[in-house]
Amino acid sequence: MAPTGGDAAYVGKRTLRVEDPRLLTGTGTYVDDIVRPGMLHACFVRSPMARARVLGIDVSEALQLDGVHAVFVASDLNPGVHEQWYTLNGRDNPDTPRPPLAEDEVRFVGDPVAMVVATDRYIAEDAAELVVVDYEPLPPVVDYATALDSAESVHADRPDNLVGRLGGRPMADLDPVFERAPHVVSQTLYQQSHGPVPMETRGIVAEYAAAGGEMTIWAATQSPHEVRSFCARLLGIAEHRVRVVMRDTGGGFGQKVLPQREDMCVMLAAARLPAALKWIEDRQEHLLAAGQARHEHGEARMALDDDGGILAATLDHVQDAGAYPTPSPVQSGIAVGMLFPGPYRIPEGTFSSRFVFSNTSGRVAYRGPWQYESMARETLLDTAARQLGLDPVELRRRNMLSREELPTANFNGMPYDHISPRETFEQALTMLDYEAFRREQVRAREQGRYLGVGTCTYVEPTAGATPFHATEGATIRIEPSGKVNVYVAGGSCGNSLETTVVQLTADSLGVAIEDVSTVQGDTAVTPYGAGTGGSRSGPMTAGAIAGTAGELRERIRAIAAHRLEVPVEEVEFVRGRAWAKGRPGEAGLTLAEIADIAYYQVHALPPGVPAGLEASGRYHTPHLMIWANATHVCTCEVDVVTGEVKLLRYIVSEDCGPMINPSVVEGQIFGGTVQGIGGALYEHLAYDDDGNPISTTFMDYLLPTATEVPVIEVGHVETPSPGPGGYKGVGEGGAIGSAPAVVNAVADALAPLGVRISRLPLTPSSVVGFVEEARTRQAVTL
Amino acid sequence: MAPTGGDAAYVGKRTLRVEDPRLLTGTGTYVDDIVRPGMLHACFVRSPMARARVLGIDVSEALQLDGVHAVFVASDLNPGVHEQWYTLNGRDNPDTPRPPLAEDEVRFVGDPVAMVVATDRYIAEDAAELVVVDYEPLPPVVDYATALDSAESVHADRPDNLVGRLGGRPMADLDPVFERAPHVVSQTLYQQSHGPVPMETRGIVAEYAAAGGEMTIWAATQSPHEVRSFCARLLGIAEHRVRVVMRDTGGGFGQKVLPQREDMCVMLAAARLPAALKWIEDRQEHLLAAGQARHEHGEARMALDDDGGILAATLDHVQDAGAYPTPSPVQSGIAVGMLFPGPYRIPEGTFSSRFVFSNTSGRVAYRGPWQYESMARETLLDTAARQLGLDPVELRRRNMLSREELPTANFNGMPYDHISPRETFEQALTMLDYEAFRREQVRAREQGRYLGVGTCTYVEPTAGATPFHATEGATIRIEPSGKVNVYVAGGSCGNSLETTVVQLTADSLGVAIEDVSTVQGDTAVTPYGAGTGGSRSGPMTAGAIAGTAGELRERIRAIAAHRLEVPVEEVEFVRGRAWAKGRPGEAGLTLAEIADIAYYQVHALPPGVPAGLEASGRYHTPHLMIWANATHVCTCEVDVVTGEVKLLRYIVSEDCGPMINPSVVEGQIFGGTVQGIGGALYEHLAYDDDGNPISTTFMDYLLPTATEVPVIEVGHVETPSPGPGGYKGVGEGGAIGSAPAVVNAVADALAPLGVRISRLPLTPSSVVGFVEEARTRQAVTL
Repeated sequence: MAPTGGDAAYVGKRTLRVEDPRLLTGTGTYVDDIVRPGMLHACFVRSPMARARVLGIDVSEALQLDGVHAVFVASDLNPGVHEQWYTLNGRDNPDTPRPPLAEDEVRFVGDPVAMVVATDRYIAEDAAELVVVDYEPLPPVVDYATALDSAESVHADRPDNLVGRLGGRPMADLDPVFERAPHVVSQTLYQQSHGPVPMETRGIVAEYAAAGGEMTIWAATQSPHEVRSFCARLLGIAEHRVRVVMRDTGGGFGQKVLPQREDMCVMLAAARLPAALKWIEDRQEHLLAAGQARHEHGEARMALDDDGGILAATLDHVQDAGAYPTPSPVQSGIAVGMLFPGPYRIPEGTFSSRFVFSNTSGRVAYRGPWQYESMARETLLDTAARQLGLDPVELRRRNMLSREELPTANFNGMPYDHISPRETFEQALTMLDYEAFRREQVRAREQGRYLGVGTCTYVEPTAGATPFHATEGATIRIEPSGKVNVYVAGGSCGNSLETTVVQLTADSLGVAIEDVSTVQGDTAVTPYGAGTGGSRSGPMTAGAIAGTAGELRERIRAIAAHRLEVPVEEVEFVRGRAWAKGRPGEAGLTLAEIADIAYYQVHALPPGVPAGLEASGRYHTPHLMIWANATHVCTCEVDVVTGEVKLLRYIVSEDCGPMINPSVVEGQIFGGTVQGIGGALYEHLAYDDDGNPISTTFMDYLLPTATEVPVIEVGHVETPSPGPGGYKGVGEGGAIGSAPAVVNAVADALAPLGVRISRLPLTPSSVVGFVEEARTRQAVTL
Repeated sequence: MAPTGGDAAYVGKRTLRVEDPRLLTGTGTYVDDIVRPGMLHACFVRSPMARARVLGIDVSEALQLDGVHAVFVASDLNPGVHEQWYTLNGRDNPDTPRPPLAEDEVRFVGDPVAMVVATDRYIAEDAAELVVVDYEPLPPVVDYATALDSAESVHADRPDNLVGRLGGRPMADLDPVFERAPHVVSQTLYQQSHGPVPMETRGIVAEYAAAGGEMTIWAATQSPHEVRSFCARLLGIAEHRVRVVMRDTGGGFGQKVLPQREDMCVMLAAARLPAALKWIEDRQEHLLAAGQARHEHGEARMALDDDGGILAATLDHVQDAGAYPTPSPVQSGIAVGMLFPGPYRIPEGTFSSRFVFSNTSGRVAYRGPWQYESMARETLLDTAARQLGLDPVELRRRNMLSREELPTANFNGMPYDHISPRETFEQALTMLDYEAFRREQVRAREQGRYLGVGTCTYVEPTAGATPFHATEGATIRIEPSGKVNVYVAGGSCGNSLETTVVQLTADSLGVAIEDVSTVQGDTAVTPYGAGTGGSRSGPMTAGAIAGTAGELRERIRAIAAHRLEVPVEEVEFVRGRAWAKGRPGEAGLTLAEIADIAYYQVHALPPGVPAGLEASGRYHTPHLMIWANATHVCTCEVDVVTGEVKLLRYIVSEDCGPMINPSVVEGQIFGGTVQGIGGALYEHLAYDDDGNPISTTFMDYLLPTATEVPVIEVGHVETPSPGPGGYKGVGEGGAIGSAPAVVNAVADALAPLGVRISRLPLTPSSVVGFVEEARTRQAVTL
């Protein structure tokens, strides 16, 4: 399945990104760049209260405003909406409520209660302010951690606020192990709510052609085919009458895989409007209502023997679903528990995961949605090391899997193979010079400076883990000129998929990269597919392209053999030119000449070779999961007076198999790592006790910038997967490993002060608080 | 190759057109409906003289006008343009000059000399009037018929004004036959210039994304892939970077197969502009510069024996190329000569065809571009009958081929088979009740009324006659829901191709027609193909769909067999449902269930069956030509005082093989017939002696309307072709047979007066002129 067998001119190289010329010159096409004739604009009226009964909505004044076309409320849009499950989840998965507009009750600040449609956005916003909603405030369930015990319910039909619970064997089964164990360590770490915050907010344009019953949607999405299927079900029209187009999407990170309630409103309204309807989320709306992630905590326990060997581990995990999660958070909860053992020898264990409604913005997927498994395990390992008086690195060395032990399975039965945790761990430590850092740390402490080092090693399942993700199609069309168009389902949302596809196709066919173009992200153009998500694009696309291009190469060689009058086995086809083996000096055939035969000299085709040069193929992975792994190591200095955390070095050793493009791999690692750093130190979608969001601008919601992030140093270990090209996928990894490494580094820095980190993010005031708390605790203890 | 083998639910039936809901509600998308952000608008400055030297162009005043973005002249756009041949013709075909803008000399009234680009069309038009062109008038070559002897040249490098000459064996070879023949008849008939005049004029929007080097074109075209290839060559960019989109095109009739000079200007200018550029031709421009057709004459000769048996026939044909023909008129000239023998036993003969430049609008293809072969032959046969004292029907009966004589070849070597000229002829005469009409004619003459009857019988080559036309691709994508998208290259330009494609696909797959959608006319979406032209869409598309759908049906049956646990041979799949043969009552599988397996239960696929349900296939016709044939019969009454011709009955007996959709077949016949009636009686792109066009509005250029056209009665003879489904193609036929039948009817009506028709159209004044001329001639003779 290696793409070319010796003709790799682009794969594996730092090929320049083909999307950059348009993106860097400001000529990308984001959804807000779409203009349609007579297009109308939507603005939502959103709840100012975390929970309230809606007694009435008066839209009369808004309708008076010049340019207002319509004001929709729940009774307009909600009745009769069809099944709303996501293909990603499968139709049998339990789902959560998802009314397009709030009905009798609003359930978080930002909950859409009405949608104004006007000739421009300014008028729509003005009109939205004229919509009068009569609210009767109700006591909100703000804190998910206490929601299960609350007398109030987010959804009346779920009185206990429990979305669902999943887990392994009963916790009590493990009690004998913990009771017998020489050492037991446990901790509970609360992770704050934060989210993907892509550069491009959400946005959608929907245009319904009533005459033909056809819906066209331009969307900021990671999965145009999922949007299409969803819209078809929502409106009760056939999916082949829905066309979803994405061109450039300015980041998704999981949030843009699935349509949300605002998208539903726009789709439903567009079906009744005479022109296209556009809604572009502004940043405040985004921070209010686009969703949150990572809001969870877990009580993690570990039993160890006297040598630091892990005997068992358990995780009791609870996550915040918000009021309207998208999708059901069940999947990330399973993954948190299933992956909790990570790349360690842990003979026994179990997990429980609960998902809890609250009157806050709904949970969305976010790059490595199961990231908490690493956070829980890796911070617990550091705590255990301190408790046992071992260096955290030493504790890990004693328990970490290395290649020689493969294949194996973790205690949840997840089968690991083709991974290299030990190798990335050692590579990262070598890159740092761990011993030297420890010496420097000692010297610094002597000067009253608090340096720390943290690590995180994880394994990640990538391509093909769900039925939705298990196949990927490619259509390759070699045009009569010999130029190539290639079509895959997804589209580039910052992950360089265009470049990946063009690279793979050029090498798979053996042509120059400038001779290959791709059209992606248009359901009318591309084969059905899941799009970007779960780090699947690289390996799955590679499989689809390799198979399809292979079919075309056979036809190319057959045509060339026929024309050159040699057996097919005697034909070489390299870099767009065919010749008889061993006779490269002789006149061969260019791909343009071969294509000319295929299209215009069809009488000259060999028997059995069809006219034209187009093929469609679909790869389906025989592997339930492909595994990637990495180790993050970082060092920091903490100012214990101001609480400022300054990262000093940041190292990632990653095994994503062979690299299709090292620059793209690094870009994925850098981006994910920076998001994890933000999650550990800065980003917080915070609510006050009444459920009012207090970080709805970038003045309050703090993102890491270039000044906060050190150079990220990348090492690479290459363990090919059994999948196409040996590729593994690299989209999410950076975001999984980074936050735990940073937290461990800060904890390590502050260990001499007895600081215990129980809550994120590690903002200056939070750090100062932990230091104060440790001092108080120690004073009390003394 | 019959599409379904017994499951034809839609093919052959009067299935309603799927494009009608949008077209009839005014929600089609014609090129003028395209709006792009910041779009600019073009207007051409055109020559007011038929021939003049351009001494200078002053654009300064135009550029001063607010909103004017640019004014392009030849020195801006013409230099460096790349090869401009048309794929339709092949790159080796001789071509004619085609400068985007006129350079040193303007060559017809309407010749574009400058292009103004402004923020809207109104400003562009105003600015065009401010462009000052300094012309030095030159004597024009207005009459093509005398152009070969003119001292003036349309193009300096073609001093004799001859574009080219083609022909069979030398005319002189036939002299002995004519010298020996008992009867020789000859006539020269001049056909006037007229043209396609589609409801939608020409139009194009071109938008260049400089960053990625990508050109997107929305065009009113019959062949988006030809526009793409042409644009790629013109701009010197690769064709996979050019995307051409047509959605609804309001008629083409041959004129919109190939890009013309205005299109070139828009493409070239767009590549230098920061936004999309739109040009929509207005009706006056269209009648000035969109091209003319049918402007030709021929000296036809026929030698006959005493029984009316044809011994030989020759045609010396000359056609007007105008100043800038599109394409080279060579192909229509060949076809005129090659098809001149028609469906008759003519043992010997030859032809010559010459193509001559003139200072008029350039020749374009027009529905049955070789129509003059029928005009020359069929009017000559009537003249011969009168000369021999035979009824024209009787003369034809003595010479016309019938099925029993097939296969055969005409004297040019064109191989005829699967045709039924004699059968259509007799059917049409029966429908009329020819003998009854002759009796009525006699009675009318006794009352001083002039009734006439005319016939025309022709054979027409349809699918696949050129390399460009010889293949057609189809991609069929069954979506996970079991709904179907099908993709073919062309698009519907009024010929119901959408309906045809959806019908064929529904039956080929065995699904409901509402479960099939098609996206056509977008080169980024569809397989490469020639588009609409040469009556090819029906048979070629049928071949492409039958092959591709067949592949999918096999996969559908294999999946169903595997799930139902029966051998594949035991599976029935009809109307979207599979079941074990003989057990239709038992639970089977719907296509949605089978698609769900193919996409989401890939582990459940039988060995060797790929995931997904998509296939791409390409049909290539093994037949050099497929032949259709028909007979037109019409009757008329001529008012010899006013010259008015009133058609009484109009009958077409057509053999296009099995009908995919009788309503579509009839629509094609009706439309073509009306165009032929217009050509015989009304339409005239006339010029005065100085080369000034005198019919540049629909007040002067007269189109037939419902009040001028009788009910068209259609009979059908069905002789399957050897091609897919036995289909033959029916696009052009109506336009070939109608004008000769009308001319013959008028001549028949006026035969008692000795009228000889030598020049078309048969307008009232022209008819009065012929009657006068006959009276004068007979008076002189007496």
